[in-house]
Amino acid sequence: MIEHGGSAASKVLQSVRWADGVLDLLDQRLLPEQTVYLKLTTPQDVWEAIRELKVRGAPAIGISAAYGVVLGIQGFEGTASELAEEAKRHAEYLATSRPTAVNLFWALDRMTAKAASLSEAGASAPHAKDELLKEARLIQSEDEETNRLIGEHALTLFQDGMGVLTHCNAGGLATSKYGTALAPFYLALEQGISLKVFADETRPVLQGARLTAFELQQAGVDVTLITDNMAAHVMSKGWVQAVIVGTDRVAANGDVANKIGTYGVAVLAKAHGIPFYVACPMSTIDLTTATGAEIPIEERHSDEVTNAFGRRTAPEGVKVYNPAFDVTPSELVTAIITEKGIVRAPYETNLKALFNK
Amino acid sequence: MIEHGGSAASKVLQSVRWADGVLDLLDQRLLPEQTVYLKLTTPQDVWEAIRELKVRGAPAIGISAAYGVVLGIQGFEGTASELAEEAKRHAEYLATSRPTAVNLFWALDRMTAKAASLSEAGASAPHAKDELLKEARLIQSEDEETNRLIGEHALTLFQDGMGVLTHCNAGGLATSKYGTALAPFYLALEQGISLKVFADETRPVLQGARLTAFELQQAGVDVTLITDNMAAHVMSKGWVQAVIVGTDRVAANGDVANKIGTYGVAVLAKAHGIPFYVACPMSTIDLTTATGAEIPIEERHSDEVTNAFGRRTAPEGVKVYNPAFDVTPSELVTAIITEKGIVRAPYETNLKALFNK
Repeated sequence: MIEHGGSAASKVLQSVRWADGVLDLLDQRLLPEQTVYLKLTTPQDVWEAIRELKVRGAPAIGISAAYGVVLGIQGFEGTASELAEEAKRHAEYLATSRPTAVNLFWALDRMTAKAASLSEAGASAPHAKDELLKEARLIQSEDEETNRLIGEHALTLFQDGMGVLTHCNAGGLATSKYGTALAPFYLALEQGISLKVFADETRPVLQGARLTAFELQQAGVDVTLITDNMAAHVMSKGWVQAVIVGTDRVAANGDVANKIGTYGVAVLAKAHGIPFYVACPMSTIDLTTATGAEIPIEERHSDEVTNAFGRRTAPEGVKVYNPAFDVTPSELVTAIITEKGIVRAPYETNLKALFNK
Repeated sequence: MIEHGGSAASKVLQSVRWADGVLDLLDQRLLPEQTVYLKLTTPQDVWEAIRELKVRGAPAIGISAAYGVVLGIQGFEGTASELAEEAKRHAEYLATSRPTAVNLFWALDRMTAKAASLSEAGASAPHAKDELLKEARLIQSEDEETNRLIGEHALTLFQDGMGVLTHCNAGGLATSKYGTALAPFYLALEQGISLKVFADETRPVLQGARLTAFELQQAGVDVTLITDNMAAHVMSKGWVQAVIVGTDRVAANGDVANKIGTYGVAVLAKAHGIPFYVACPMSTIDLTTATGAEIPIEERHSDEVTNAFGRRTAPEGVKVYNPAFDVTPSELVTAIITEKGIVRAPYETNLKALFNK
């Protein structure tokens, strides 16, 4: 695994850590009240952790599953070919933990393909074991490197002393390290660049309050938590010079689907003359989706709005509208920041060009 | 007390009701989980209800206190002059329940002045008692009439089938009846005009979820609860044709101070070409405040943001910014609706003219 940075970086919480044959996993269900690392030693442990949402975020889930395969084979005695069979068995089992997680399947396929190719190449079983651990570490370090590059590109857009507002959590907890939208904040800390972050709490599920504020605070980033409806007021006071958010999917025309509330923040940013940036890995850009209108908006249960945190805060039986995402049209997006660089309008042309870069 | 309307109006919850020598008070601390009317029979009961926030909203507090004086003197035996002394004693006591509530002092002063003038005019004690009850009822019915007029003027701006978004609670619970921003919804119901209301939940204290959604639902108004950060998305879907909010203070230039988040809603409304209306009694317009910049913004405790739902939802020790209000500049205000009529820009001239009307 690539190790970067000095003391500031070392304070960045990692949700997935491999150490001496054990997978240390930050139990995200307990955040922000408790910071507990679970010690996972079997594929069953990993399966349960994924199923029970102890680990969340597509990259973090994929990385955990890859290590889950390593846990399954590390004590195995047999030939390299038998080891490949065993790895496949564990991978198939781990794939049942979350049926719709694309990153999970991708990481497990990569592990089983590696085991098969080692067996075919006539590797010894001990060597194959080493190589599979290396592969899992590579999946993790590649993700970290992607995020680090996104962060470096993003940081070129920020200056020392700026206020930056973010929405939801596109952070290190969901990935190997750094996250996407939060990556520049960690890199700024490493480089002694002072940024003042405003984190929207992000109702209804409060990812901003529970996760973003938490991980930035842990790392020592200057973060101030606000409720979503305070963003406009904070902008009007001149405290925000940029907005940066993550995304679930970018359409070919540059429309951006992200956590509910993102679109409102983009409108407010424009009204205040503040640039609005979107950070994401290339894998999030979907050229087969023409525009944001094609992206289905998931509606979630009304309980998230009426009973969010252990008590009812709205009348019984009240009608609720609870869309999980919204779409920000590309004309409100100042730039999209990827590991391959920064893209600006016209997105239709420039996003396509980025893939050929 | 003026009685209006048919069956629809009768479902409008009243927070303060006088019936047969007893003050029925809706315990607002229990909303929306329980609808409990307290039966208050002494000034002490009323003092406690005000102090413990069982009743909230400046008009509702003033009305309750006036009835508190009536409760204190209704069993009194003595001369009209002694009665006036007794009324004054109760008023002074009730005035200590909430030290900064202007409406409270105003209502109590009105009651003691009435008692004094009755005594001076040589009224009998039984007649004076009747007149003091009438005075308390008058304070209530005047407030109701003000709200009704605001509602009637507001309703001229709405058409059948429109979607209207509101923020916070400027509703009947805070007043004698109808509220200010919510008044047109109740009147529309009485008149068979169909409006679809979207209520922002209004973090951090959730007045929209706990009170607005509750009182509109109780009355049978078509209300949908959303989190604050869904307003932009709902507007982009074309579901909102007008926004209406209350206000704590209107400056001479038409700048509007109201619950945090109001300014953001106004910016979003403008971006979507939706008119933004402010409803308030004339008493809220303060010509001695030149602009919104002169209105101090109260900052409240961080607990409201970090521990709002009965459990901690943000990390211990995180920095929080928690302004209770924001200021919407007059250029975003389409019209201000008062009991005396509707005012549009230029506000400086037209608000002044309204006072001379």
